[in-house]
Amino acid sequence: MKTRVGIIGATGYTGVELLRLLLRHPEVEVTALTSQKYAGVPIDQVFPSLMNHLQVKCEELSVDQISKKTDFVFTAVPHKTAMETVPLFYKGGKRVVDLSADFRFKDAMVYERWYQKHTSADLLPESVYGLPELHREKIRGAKIVGNPGCYPTGALIGLIPLVQREMISLEGIIIDSKSGVSGAGRDVVLGSLFCEVNEGVKAYKIFEHRHLPEIEQELSQQAGKKVPVTFVPHLIPMDRGILTTLYLTLTKKWKTEEVLNTFQEHYQKEPFVRIYPKGKLPNTKEVRGSNYCDIGIKVNEADGRTVIVTAIDNLVKGASGEAVQNMNIMLGFPETMGLEVLPLSP
Amino acid sequence: MKTRVGIIGATGYTGVELLRLLLRHPEVEVTALTSQKYAGVPIDQVFPSLMNHLQVKCEELSVDQISKKTDFVFTAVPHKTAMETVPLFYKGGKRVVDLSADFRFKDAMVYERWYQKHTSADLLPESVYGLPELHREKIRGAKIVGNPGCYPTGALIGLIPLVQREMISLEGIIIDSKSGVSGAGRDVVLGSLFCEVNEGVKAYKIFEHRHLPEIEQELSQQAGKKVPVTFVPHLIPMDRGILTTLYLTLTKKWKTEEVLNTFQEHYQKEPFVRIYPKGKLPNTKEVRGSNYCDIGIKVNEADGRTVIVTAIDNLVKGASGEAVQNMNIMLGFPETMGLEVLPLSP
Amino acid sequence: MKTRVGIIGATGYTGVELLRLLLRHPEVEVTALTSQKYAGVPIDQVFPSLMNHLQVKCEELSVDQISKKTDFVFTAVPHKTAMETVPLFYKGGKRVVDLSADFRFKDAMVYERWYQKHTSADLLPESVYGLPELHREKIRGAKIVGNPGCYPTGALIGLIPLVQREMISLEGIIIDSKSGVSGAGRDVVLGSLFCEVNEGVKAYKIFEHRHLPEIEQELSQQAGKKVPVTFVPHLIPMDRGILTTLYLTLTKKWKTEEVLNTFQEHYQKEPFVRIYPKGKLPNTKEVRGSNYCDIGIKVNEADGRTVIVTAIDNLVKGASGEAVQNMNIMLGFPETMGLEVLPLSP
Amino acid sequence: MKTRVGIIGATGYTGVELLRLLLRHPEVEVTALTSQKYAGVPIDQVFPSLMNHLQVKCEELSVDQISKKTDFVFTAVPHKTAMETVPLFYKGGKRVVDLSADFRFKDAMVYERWYQKHTSADLLPESVYGLPELHREKIRGAKIVGNPGCYPTGALIGLIPLVQREMISLEGIIIDSKSGVSGAGRDVVLGSLFCEVNEGVKAYKIFEHRHLPEIEQELSQQAGKKVPVTFVPHLIPMDRGILTTLYLTLTKKWKTEEVLNTFQEHYQKEPFVRIYPKGKLPNTKEVRGSNYCDIGIKVNEADGRTVIVTAIDNLVKGASGEAVQNMNIMLGFPETMGLEVLPLSP
Repeated sequence: MKTRVGIIGATGYTGVELLRLLLRHPEVEVTALTSQKYAGVPIDQVFPSLMNHLQVKCEELSVDQISKKTDFVFTAVPHKTAMETVPLFYKGGKRVVDLSADFRFKDAMVYERWYQKHTSADLLPESVYGLPELHREKIRGAKIVGNPGCYPTGALIGLIPLVQREMISLEGIIIDSKSGVSGAGRDVVLGSLFCEVNEGVKAYKIFEHRHLPEIEQELSQQAGKKVPVTFVPHLIPMDRGILTTLYLTLTKKWKTEEVLNTFQEHYQKEPFVRIYPKGKLPNTKEVRGSNYCDIGIKVNEADGRTVIVTAIDNLVKGASGEAVQNMNIMLGFPETMGLEVLPLSP
Repeated sequence: MKTRVGIIGATGYTGVELLRLLLRHPEVEVTALTSQKYAGVPIDQVFPSLMNHLQVKCEELSVDQISKKTDFVFTAVPHKTAMETVPLFYKGGKRVVDLSADFRFKDAMVYERWYQKHTSADLLPESVYGLPELHREKIRGAKIVGNPGCYPTGALIGLIPLVQREMISLEGIIIDSKSGVSGAGRDVVLGSLFCEVNEGVKAYKIFEHRHLPEIEQELSQQAGKKVPVTFVPHLIPMDRGILTTLYLTLTKKWKTEEVLNTFQEHYQKEPFVRIYPKGKLPNTKEVRGSNYCDIGIKVNEADGRTVIVTAIDNLVKGASGEAVQNMNIMLGFPETMGLEVLPLSP
Repeated sequence: MKTRVGIIGATGYTGVELLRLLLRHPEVEVTALTSQKYAGVPIDQVFPSLMNHLQVKCEELSVDQISKKTDFVFTAVPHKTAMETVPLFYKGGKRVVDLSADFRFKDAMVYERWYQKHTSADLLPESVYGLPELHREKIRGAKIVGNPGCYPTGALIGLIPLVQREMISLEGIIIDSKSGVSGAGRDVVLGSLFCEVNEGVKAYKIFEHRHLPEIEQELSQQAGKKVPVTFVPHLIPMDRGILTTLYLTLTKKWKTEEVLNTFQEHYQKEPFVRIYPKGKLPNTKEVRGSNYCDIGIKVNEADGRTVIVTAIDNLVKGASGEAVQNMNIMLGFPETMGLEVLPLSP
Repeated sequence: MKTRVGIIGATGYTGVELLRLLLRHPEVEVTALTSQKYAGVPIDQVFPSLMNHLQVKCEELSVDQISKKTDFVFTAVPHKTAMETVPLFYKGGKRVVDLSADFRFKDAMVYERWYQKHTSADLLPESVYGLPELHREKIRGAKIVGNPGCYPTGALIGLIPLVQREMISLEGIIIDSKSGVSGAGRDVVLGSLFCEVNEGVKAYKIFEHRHLPEIEQELSQQAGKKVPVTFVPHLIPMDRGILTTLYLTLTKKWKTEEVLNTFQEHYQKEPFVRIYPKGKLPNTKEVRGSNYCDIGIKVNEADGRTVIVTAIDNLVKGASGEAVQNMNIMLGFPETMGLEVLPLSP
């Protein structure tokens, strides 16, 4: 019998992306979808791409109702709403992958400094930061998984192997990320209009993006001490994809091959990390629609300056794909199940 | 045992798209790839999107070599090359889906008027025009399938139900198509440069596009008489997708619902045709990456003027997806096998 | 002394485009800008592109205040608002170019069928439809000019020469238009979000777009009888530009050159119409940012089927550029003044 | 009498952009255009955007012929060709702005390390690096101006004020640039095809881009000592624009306002540099088509980390606009002449 899955907040871009993946997942069945705005509307009228695949109607959120119909829940609602909703499912015994920021932080004070008062701080010890490449074993038993932000996913996968091995200086790490527009979600705001975004590029929230403390939390945990980083996100005119350019300094004069080997060894068993050979660099286009994180490496052997470039699809490995990967781990399914889809290129 | 498949001309956009689909097809194995330009190069170096999925090297075309390694062949080479290559596989007993124009025409003279001398005209009676919605039974037993052009696929699926039932006037049919740039292929030509195409739209080859006689052949066959049409293709700044707007006149004053019902009945068993409800119109974005042809219908009930709009992904339903669908029919696999991938939207 | 100009509703895309042009116009000075949303905000904070050029603050609309500061007024507000605002300026003796639909129609009943009750129908006889290529002399003395819609501009310039000379059948005229997204304005609506529009194309409002009656009004006036047309607009992923493909039938078997000569003669004195030579077709990219309407012609000499393609920038010749052209005519300035800017390509 | 101007290599993107600007310049007349590929073809057939503005035919390069027809020359040919061509004009007494890299370097050895043998090294002392904001006085009397690269222009304008005042550490300067596709020129290469570039982003030539030594030359000259920098360019899917994100560390804990004031003072007389107020950041869209360089500043006051963001149009301030600015300076015209065009946004 298939696992019955519900999506709370199904009508954003992470919602439709969860559906694209879950509807091809052989072990689950999508049985409940909620949406304030589209309550009563069949989901394939909200997203015609789903026609012929799912006629479930969106409904208003009733935790009782949804709990009866589902075995597992994804919450794809904004932060704040998530911290009010997830505990109710948790108390009802449901396991949850939450795609908001509300269950990503170990330290409620950090959360509160960057977001707002946390009304479910008591559950933070129960929740696991859902980066499988880092916390797979904890995710397996987790009741609540705080699915990582899109930027942290791309940044951390590029940094962790070197941080863990103390191969890079922890001072002066710079993270320059370039994101497609779907990362801003489906909210109807001026800044997301086609003519505001198309044919332009800008930086935003320099030093102030809320994904910064998330990156620092995980790096610091791995390093065993506080690791402040500089993080600047940029918006570029495409639907999907985040390219992250990491500016690092090696602690010794390792050769390119040594750094490359480090990554290859570190990720050799990871199904969704692909290391590019020397001289090649990734392009978000080559991961689009897939759960891959592609990594390219360039070392200036004379002085140890190193640039690592990672490419992900922000809606897949940076959100819904990673969420399905987490679900697979939690439920004991093969980790790649439902995620075998190849990148769509061109 | 899996069917061993080869792709002749694997390094164009239809080639990589065939691979994206075939690598997820449970009953086939890709065992040979040819490319003049990339002979000796592993395919995942040509197309990094395929990394971790296939390391087969491209090789120069040797029909003997390829024939030993394969049970079934796709030819994705330019016309003219196709007419020289396909017969060799045919004589060796291989069944072939040819993605060029060389085996789409019943009448060699029509082909020669629009293309050039046909040196394998003797094989035209053996080949079947590979539009499954129209010729499924013949495709089943075909040795050679001439896979339809991208524009004809979108146009014919929108026209056939009405032509077969004599519901539209056969005079004055107008087909206005808007295509993404991948339809022009991966040839390195000035007109396909990003800065030549981006942020602009143009018509081209008015009255003169080579897909015109293909459309007329199939319509005429269904109508039992010559059906000339007006066809104007346009190039628009996106990777994939063809939207075709058909301007028609009903022969009687049918209501919208009647026309809608006609389409629903006609295509009710078709796995890849989706009819939009009254008042809704398709968008190529909602079929991207999938094998669907979406259809929207608008009737001016006062005077019978009717606009049918169809949306396909030119690389899938307009080329490689349709080719896989044809292979499935020819080899007795479920028709949707390897093609269940959902559209990627946004 | 320069003419003092005000823009009512300055913070939409037609507003900023008016400013781009007027700020380079040697005979005018922009002295007043209104905006409900941005009252009190300097315009170069709303549109950073204008930095260093204009620091005028947006203000709430007070007809008295604006009238004191200006000699000439552009109203770039939505229809309905326009019909309430324009009469107040008119009564105060100001001449107005209105960019809404409210003063485009001769027949209030037509307006009311497609829009809503017209509360200033008494002023319709005073207003002139602002297509300079058609009504230059009337515009010269007009108190109110109803600036044409973007689609009608591109369609009418392609049709008028043939309609006036009775060279095309008036039955069965088909107008298939493809527009960039700025045509939808700067309203914050779901359908204008980048990820909803990018990498897709769709038709909309088939038979029902409000620019249809505007086209029919002008054609009928020229033809001396009712000319119904089929008009289907499409939305494509680019900022600016409308390509209009006109499907026509010649009343005699004129040759391509004859039709071409007709256009060249008809428009030889027009500063903003460019006729492409035989065999060439326009691209919206080649008019971007300019006030040109480019025209390409293709005749099927065997049977008289004819396709005319026109390309404009919807924000310039389709809106703000045409509005400035109208102002120039009304105020006796050289017609090209402020509009000499060349297209931006690529 | 107008200055007669010739463009050597007129049919690339910098060529058409020079023409867009020069054709609106009141003091010059374009009298000669050369092109190997399009010799004999009127320029408005190569670039339809120029229709109605210029019918000059492209011709093959004959220095004698061109010299007779012109008073001033722009060379927009590839490096290597430039070093063979410019000396011939120089010897004939013509003043030249060269848009290639061949006359940008003071030290021939640096050039030769990054490019190839320099066959006109004797002229390097005669040539001036054409960044007006830095070398205006030398440009005034120069016989040859080496017009800066697009990336260096955006980087240097953001760095110079702080380097000259020793306000930033010269160690660890990081320059992360994002460029539109026109920066790659109009060469017909696979990597510039629409479908290769659209909907993707990549880094390229990390540590190895030829604009790196150009940046280092100018910074080192200002600093009075060698200033190595890290420079990583990226390609993003848009026609025009370079956003450069500079990662810097202040040498003292200046406040944001102090850094802002530094920029405002430094550039207060510069007609083409616009400093954004605190809290605002530039977008390439707001400079498109114009000669502006927009600058945004963000200081982390706690520790002195500073991010400067600059936005230019690579074809204008990054190439042809800067070239016209240089010509204006050399010929004693007002520096903004022909460059007053406002940005095209959206």
